[in-house]
Amino acid sequence: MVIIMEPGASQEQIDHVIKRIESAGVKAQPSLGEERTVIGVIGDKTKLGDMPIESMSGVERTMPISAPFKLASRQFRGEPTTVEANGTKIGGKKLIVMAGPCAVENNEQIITIAKEIAKSGATFIRGGAFKPRTGPYNFQGHGEPALRMLAEARRVTGLGIITEVMTPHDVELVGRYTDIFQLGTRNMQNFYLLREVGRSGKPVVLKRGLAATIEEWLLAAEYILAEGNPNVILCERGIRTFETHTRNTLDLNAVPVIKELSHLPIVVDPSHGTGIRSLVSPMSKAAIAAGADGLLLEVHHDPDNSMTGDGVQSLFPAQFDQLMIDLKSIAGAIGREV
Amino acid sequence: MVIIMEPGASQEQIDHVIKRIESAGVKAQPSLGEERTVIGVIGDKTKLGDMPIESMSGVERTMPISAPFKLASRQFRGEPTTVEANGTKIGGKKLIVMAGPCAVENNEQIITIAKEIAKSGATFIRGGAFKPRTGPYNFQGHGEPALRMLAEARRVTGLGIITEVMTPHDVELVGRYTDIFQLGTRNMQNFYLLREVGRSGKPVVLKRGLAATIEEWLLAAEYILAEGNPNVILCERGIRTFETHTRNTLDLNAVPVIKELSHLPIVVDPSHGTGIRSLVSPMSKAAIAAGADGLLLEVHHDPDNSMTGDGVQSLFPAQFDQLMIDLKSIAGAIGREV
Amino acid sequence: MVIIMEPGASQEQIDHVIKRIESAGVKAQPSLGEERTVIGVIGDKTKLGDMPIESMSGVERTMPISAPFKLASRQFRGEPTTVEANGTKIGGKKLIVMAGPCAVENNEQIITIAKEIAKSGATFIRGGAFKPRTGPYNFQGHGEPALRMLAEARRVTGLGIITEVMTPHDVELVGRYTDIFQLGTRNMQNFYLLREVGRSGKPVVLKRGLAATIEEWLLAAEYILAEGNPNVILCERGIRTFETHTRNTLDLNAVPVIKELSHLPIVVDPSHGTGIRSLVSPMSKAAIAAGADGLLLEVHHDPDNSMTGDGVQSLFPAQFDQLMIDLKSIAGAIGREV
Amino acid sequence: MVIIMEPGASQEQIDHVIKRIESAGVKAQPSLGEERTVIGVIGDKTKLGDMPIESMSGVERTMPISAPFKLASRQFRGEPTTVEANGTKIGGKKLIVMAGPCAVENNEQIITIAKEIAKSGATFIRGGAFKPRTGPYNFQGHGEPALRMLAEARRVTGLGIITEVMTPHDVELVGRYTDIFQLGTRNMQNFYLLREVGRSGKPVVLKRGLAATIEEWLLAAEYILAEGNPNVILCERGIRTFETHTRNTLDLNAVPVIKELSHLPIVVDPSHGTGIRSLVSPMSKAAIAAGADGLLLEVHHDPDNSMTGDGVQSLFPAQFDQLMIDLKSIAGAIGREV
Repeated sequence: MVIIMEPGASQEQIDHVIKRIESAGVKAQPSLGEERTVIGVIGDKTKLGDMPIESMSGVERTMPISAPFKLASRQFRGEPTTVEANGTKIGGKKLIVMAGPCAVENNEQIITIAKEIAKSGATFIRGGAFKPRTGPYNFQGHGEPALRMLAEARRVTGLGIITEVMTPHDVELVGRYTDIFQLGTRNMQNFYLLREVGRSGKPVVLKRGLAATIEEWLLAAEYILAEGNPNVILCERGIRTFETHTRNTLDLNAVPVIKELSHLPIVVDPSHGTGIRSLVSPMSKAAIAAGADGLLLEVHHDPDNSMTGDGVQSLFPAQFDQLMIDLKSIAGAIGREV
Repeated sequence: MVIIMEPGASQEQIDHVIKRIESAGVKAQPSLGEERTVIGVIGDKTKLGDMPIESMSGVERTMPISAPFKLASRQFRGEPTTVEANGTKIGGKKLIVMAGPCAVENNEQIITIAKEIAKSGATFIRGGAFKPRTGPYNFQGHGEPALRMLAEARRVTGLGIITEVMTPHDVELVGRYTDIFQLGTRNMQNFYLLREVGRSGKPVVLKRGLAATIEEWLLAAEYILAEGNPNVILCERGIRTFETHTRNTLDLNAVPVIKELSHLPIVVDPSHGTGIRSLVSPMSKAAIAAGADGLLLEVHHDPDNSMTGDGVQSLFPAQFDQLMIDLKSIAGAIGREV
Repeated sequence: MVIIMEPGASQEQIDHVIKRIESAGVKAQPSLGEERTVIGVIGDKTKLGDMPIESMSGVERTMPISAPFKLASRQFRGEPTTVEANGTKIGGKKLIVMAGPCAVENNEQIITIAKEIAKSGATFIRGGAFKPRTGPYNFQGHGEPALRMLAEARRVTGLGIITEVMTPHDVELVGRYTDIFQLGTRNMQNFYLLREVGRSGKPVVLKRGLAATIEEWLLAAEYILAEGNPNVILCERGIRTFETHTRNTLDLNAVPVIKELSHLPIVVDPSHGTGIRSLVSPMSKAAIAAGADGLLLEVHHDPDNSMTGDGVQSLFPAQFDQLMIDLKSIAGAIGREV
Repeated sequence: MVIIMEPGASQEQIDHVIKRIESAGVKAQPSLGEERTVIGVIGDKTKLGDMPIESMSGVERTMPISAPFKLASRQFRGEPTTVEANGTKIGGKKLIVMAGPCAVENNEQIITIAKEIAKSGATFIRGGAFKPRTGPYNFQGHGEPALRMLAEARRVTGLGIITEVMTPHDVELVGRYTDIFQLGTRNMQNFYLLREVGRSGKPVVLKRGLAATIEEWLLAAEYILAEGNPNVILCERGIRTFETHTRNTLDLNAVPVIKELSHLPIVVDPSHGTGIRSLVSPMSKAAIAAGADGLLLEVHHDPDNSMTGDGVQSLFPAQFDQLMIDLKSIAGAIGREV
């Protein structure tokens, strides 16, 4: 950390800051500029805890030098992490595709879709049992019965399950059925939920918050990792910007950035990221070309009759099948496979 | 709602959409333009539920005409709502000031600050017992002991209490001590938590999410109202934009917008909204001039030794006292009082 | 400036960076941390010019310590600047109100409005002769005839003129008529135009770019100041965010921030900042309470028949008159006058 | 267009709106809802010109149905446009790569780089003669001498030239040397410049504004097209969001969106879009996979000694060469070629 003193800071103020910092067990190295003094902090910054340095008299601001996440960082672990779920490895050479409807609607629906996507090469079925909805008057998911339908789809097709858990209290229940927990964008900083899925030890797909910086996202992952659960998969799903043509702005830059900063695998969700069916295939290909480890996609065999408005971003099974064929070519071009 | 068909939509597609819509019990009124057909939906739109109109064949997009929130709207209730807590009315002519430290640190701290702010004219003491922190290695609050300290501060000063609750499980515990629940920006769309405080019936300050539109914010309020709890106070606390000089961008436009769209009271938090001590006073005055019903402010008598980094945005008691004097003038100028 | 080396930077890389920097005539002070080396740069940073330090081998990134603007800064000039135009001082105790229609439509219109606003206490008439329009098929302004109408309005009412100049070539023409140049949000970084109005020496209202940080805005002002023209007035007019209820997000935080960073006067334009007539008055009051030196407002006596769509954000003369009365109270409450 | 009346609008207000609209020669079709009246506008909306409908009494807001751009739209021209410059077609099956330094520094530099990129398969050399710089104290480009150096590089290598023009006055000068005008992000809405390059008839790369919606970008293109110049190439180069890890947020969603809305070719600039050298290659591959027609890349053989800070985002020639090889595979996978 570097502490920038105000231009007119007095020697007394500088000395006070140095004394406070060194009392915590780190070394302060002041640098006398022409205009102002800058104090470098050398040593283990965590010793400073929450010391309110910026509010000390004469301090203009502080600037961090190192990233605030540890377990999630490349420095902590040099080689890529692979997460295993339902016998499938996520984060290796092989790309993973998770697909399915927005919500589990009924047994027939989920099994029909599961069979379709399995045939095309997906390895996980997704589908919401508990749905976060912007308004209270929308369909909120079928709950446990939907979890049972997902389990039945897994039994029939062999696909693994990924489904969302929305509140700490449901971690145990959802964990009984699912292979991977999904944490949604609105819950990226639901810290009690992060800790609870951390304690469960099960694989977690952690979606990026709608307005979360990459650093905040990795700090949310750190909450899970800090509970001893190394099985975190990040998921870029679009951020909120001024552009309104797309529902969100899928930020593919996050893929190579995460690969540099972290060892965790990352998948991309172009369905929510764009909110427009016709954009899903090009952005899926782009995500893989950018280096993503897999995709999370909405597929519905009958979106016109689906129970949520998200049908508009769901691929038809035939489109999904074509996309899987196209992805094989892209994957080959960058030395990976589907 | 208006449904925009694609330029080349066939009569069959148009008829299909009309049939589906009218099957739900509303009336469809097609309008044949030169380039495309537009279908107006007349009647109670809630009958359409989550019908995925946008994914129907030939539909380009839909456009809402009415706001999706009801109980929170001016149409539902014409006159302003006032919320009562600890014998104080929020939302009336008198402006309400809630002040205190970021976190409750110890008994002496909270009582010292409570006495100071009471003397200057505040009516509620704020202070975190449960703290949402971006990283897992930061101080997370003292929990129930901090709630007891707040209760002691109330006993000594007569101030009401406002403190944050972060997870549904803690609503009962926090509710035993606090007069007003605070729901933080990261929890604006924690729907289980919204419903739980809704069921409690107690006053709730609902902070706007960091990237929440005003409509989403009112829909979050609707979750609480729909549980039968009318005691919702909105709190603008800064949104996330590209500007980095301030910690967030305090969006005062939200104040008159909320006054037009809703009957709920609104307070403003310039401490988190700006993150810079010297901006708190001017933005507090601006908030009141814009029509806010009150303020939520950080005050700390010794921010240099506070337990969270937020000391940097806390007013000193003397600054707070001066601000209260200045607010009296501003309030008078717009026909209100402190 | 502080240079952050990569964690594994070699001594050779560090030495190379130091050598390059010191060759420019500044001093490098390396600080050996546990994880990485940080190099402080001491001395006149402008000596480094555009040296591409961040692209040197082993460098992770650089962090500026001082602001990159000079003439616009508080450090350069401690007391507030006042700009004089048409005999009126902008930036002093007295608040300045500039008002008028979006576009100058005809002689009668501009004189009618000028008389109305003069009666209510405005000191400048605004009105576009050259209009920046998002699309090529919209009304682009009457050009020089409109400038003559503004001059006539000045002759009749005594009001000063503020009007937009859009391209360097027109600076001479517009300058023959106007008292203050207006530089619009889309031209904040039209560097040739900034330099040209800089050379003219005339007062300039420099609107903040739609996505400009406060630092970039002050750097744009610096272009004008660097040409020897000290008469720069900043104008906050709303930034682009994710919120769509308002046309832009008027960022009043910019007012106290500018007052801290710069000596230049700042006015606020709530008409463009919000785009909604009913929000203009509350946000005008808030702007003054936040410390603005004046307002730039749209007023039209017959917006239903105006030539641009901006009528929707124009106050009627009676609303403007009431606002001027209200502003007197607010101004009094903060020790200023209208 | 659809006109939404306020809930309590009177019959008189509705009739007035209808009368005004129909007086312009279009048909108004009112639709009486339970809560409010909605008026559909049928016919050629351009007849309405700038009629300020939203400011008419009783009108809540208007909603456009059709896009406001015409010549740039898919409706106007169904098949993709190809633009020819220096004998090369842009927008066809073959992908086009334009590469070179941020600024033309000297003869040797530009020729060295031109030879390198030509060898690897680029078809255009880029390099700034006139540089838009955020602050007035930075290197602003060598001007005409730099244009001559570019011409010399073209003579030696056969590469076409693309270089930026910043102001209408320089269009003639720059046009004497360049094959393609580049219009920078800060000039996307410099309407005089758009018209001037429109009149020139020469190919133009139009970069998206930092905070421009896709619609505004296409309207800027419309300015050029409306002058009779069909040779417009769009360039996505990153938008401004809250994320600060990358310099901008390269918005690849824009690629398939533009392909749906417009017939114009689109290239992508991942160098400015990310601002980080290591991200340029993955994002280049992603851009091509998303459907872009080409790339605009910064390449510098000696960024450590470059004259602008942008060296940090420049590829070394060897990296560029490897990228060109990788792009061949990606291009093949999606049925295109480099």
